[in-house]
Amino acid sequence: MSDDTDQLRRKVVKMTGAVGMSALLSGPINVFASESNAKIQSRGYAAFDESGILKPWKFERRAVGDSDILIDIKYASICHSDIHQEKGHWGKQQYPQVPGHEMVGIVAAVGKNVTKFKVGDRAGVGCMVGNHHHHHDHDEEQYNADTIFTYGFPDDRSPTGISQGGYSNNIVVEDHFAVHIPDNVSFQEAVPLLCAGITTYSPLMRADIKPGMKVGIAGIGGLGHLAVKIAVSKGAEVYAFTTSPSKVKDILAFGAKEAIVVDDLAKLNQYRGQLDYLLSTIPYDYNVAAYAAVVKPYGTFTQVGMPINSEVTVSALNLAFARVNFNASLIGGMKETQEVVNYCADNKVLPQIQMIKAEQINDAWENVVNKKARYRYVIDASTF
Amino acid sequence: MSDDTDQLRRKVVKMTGAVGMSALLSGPINVFASESNAKIQSRGYAAFDESGILKPWKFERRAVGDSDILIDIKYASICHSDIHQEKGHWGKQQYPQVPGHEMVGIVAAVGKNVTKFKVGDRAGVGCMVGNHHHHHDHDEEQYNADTIFTYGFPDDRSPTGISQGGYSNNIVVEDHFAVHIPDNVSFQEAVPLLCAGITTYSPLMRADIKPGMKVGIAGIGGLGHLAVKIAVSKGAEVYAFTTSPSKVKDILAFGAKEAIVVDDLAKLNQYRGQLDYLLSTIPYDYNVAAYAAVVKPYGTFTQVGMPINSEVTVSALNLAFARVNFNASLIGGMKETQEVVNYCADNKVLPQIQMIKAEQINDAWENVVNKKARYRYVIDASTF
Repeated sequence: MSDDTDQLRRKVVKMTGAVGMSALLSGPINVFASESNAKIQSRGYAAFDESGILKPWKFERRAVGDSDILIDIKYASICHSDIHQEKGHWGKQQYPQVPGHEMVGIVAAVGKNVTKFKVGDRAGVGCMVGNHHHHHDHDEEQYNADTIFTYGFPDDRSPTGISQGGYSNNIVVEDHFAVHIPDNVSFQEAVPLLCAGITTYSPLMRADIKPGMKVGIAGIGGLGHLAVKIAVSKGAEVYAFTTSPSKVKDILAFGAKEAIVVDDLAKLNQYRGQLDYLLSTIPYDYNVAAYAAVVKPYGTFTQVGMPINSEVTVSALNLAFARVNFNASLIGGMKETQEVVNYCADNKVLPQIQMIKAEQINDAWENVVNKKARYRYVIDASTF
Repeated sequence: MSDDTDQLRRKVVKMTGAVGMSALLSGPINVFASESNAKIQSRGYAAFDESGILKPWKFERRAVGDSDILIDIKYASICHSDIHQEKGHWGKQQYPQVPGHEMVGIVAAVGKNVTKFKVGDRAGVGCMVGNHHHHHDHDEEQYNADTIFTYGFPDDRSPTGISQGGYSNNIVVEDHFAVHIPDNVSFQEAVPLLCAGITTYSPLMRADIKPGMKVGIAGIGGLGHLAVKIAVSKGAEVYAFTTSPSKVKDILAFGAKEAIVVDDLAKLNQYRGQLDYLLSTIPYDYNVAAYAAVVKPYGTFTQVGMPINSEVTVSALNLAFARVNFNASLIGGMKETQEVVNYCADNKVLPQIQMIKAEQINDAWENVVNKKARYRYVIDASTF
């Protein structure tokens, strides 16, 4: 990996060219970004420690390279993962760190090798922003060992040494890791599709959801409510498991056949062995095998929520009795990310959103943790 | 369930007939056992508390019912599960309790409805001894809610109120839950097949092991060493993962292609994504996702060892990266138990055993816990 890193470093040095480009932030301009070596001036909200409190921060992003695009971010949204990571639930972090892996905006500059986007295009970025080997030839970029995730990930190209996320007014990203946002969906409703959409869509598609299949969704938050809508749109009979009685009405309005309030795990017993597939978005450790048991023997149960330390506890005995395959899924590839954005736009499978300003982020985070979000907070990036 | 229990109680009362049968223990006799209401006098080794120390104990078993057989046990063997259960690792136990779910012997009496066995037959019993509903019409008895496991399980028919296991000189069992031991295998080598054999054979058959497939076995003890041999006999290329360097020579002699000493989880990295299937017999909590990662993406990893509280910890993140299906398997059905006994006898897929007397059981248990067993202790039941 150190050899690769050296190569990358040489490449980055080579990319930084001659012509100044200080006008970059004043609006879309039609020059190749790589003609400039000007770092991009950014502002956003960053975590400075594990407190979970974000504050305004000004920082620099790398100059726009030959394969990069610069996006003027219009909206970013809040994922429970942002909170886990900034609080150090998944391991020690480098601060200051700007979270956010759901963002949409307008392309403001493109590198000279970029053909996928032009200045003025509507574009979105999700959980990945690059990889060292440019493994772009299949749809599983998320599993490459050298993938750079959108924030807090070591990135030699970044002036701060790590990737900095979407709670910000702009981002520089390899064009491969941006998707087009079609005109038939608003920016505000498109933005949660970049993580919550793809993270639930990808395993649902792998499960080959067909009309009439009984599909369970456990954990009805930002991810789960979109999962319900996606499964409903595919014709599934959806059983939604929540711990929040106040979400029942919403869940039924999303098209679920049943909304089950799991205030006691015994509530799951009546669904034992009934469902064709179950997707869990629960972002804390929980009784995996108790939920697995609602799936028909030899069916599949997929975890997408990532708990503290990413760990869940599984009773091997109860999993054996359930005879269910347990697996986990991590977002999706870039091809599939474009697919889910297009699918949701075309089929009006859209998130329930609450608009906030940057200064409301800390309150919004508390609401997400306390299960009060309904269902995705979208930040107006003009307020950063 | 209380209605069922009442029905069962009435049935048991009805079964207890007129004719005495005190001669039962003097040797095989050709009368229908159900003509007697004499309880069976037994002796064995029992746990009296959670200390893990066993002592000799005399106790009674139920009279032989119409569908029961009485087996004079010749050999019983030691499974790590015996130790976990008697130490209370899987929950509070009722004592005294005779462990043991691997036993073979000679049929000494049969109930009047029994056609499967006759007195003098060679028979074996594994992890199950009955169920209240007599659900015998498929091969998944182990998953019925009312299955009675071989020891420590509530059983109204038992004078002690619970099932009492095979560390004993005899057992009364529904004929459905006994298998024939063919003549082409010794009793001593057949006995571990009743749990270790079926528990590993069943998931290996479900995985559809074919010649040339790369199969991993993790944890090379009583179960694991048989799993290696079974997989080898099916033509698989077997990779055995052990924490005991002293087992390497044995493992290669069993036919494994490689014996990997996992003294550091990093040793698993070089096998990342290589194997078609992995079976783990590790009976303690361990890093499931680290092992899962040796399986090819979208392959399967099955747990059969049952740790303390049956719980294993899974990193959902690493499981997602591995893209591996994790499941667990519990023994196998009775049809398949007969199949594995026949298969292993016919193909000489036989366990490595160490013969002991009853008085050596406590030492043997310590050796099992300390990974010193090579590989299954078989108790001469004449020493009880």
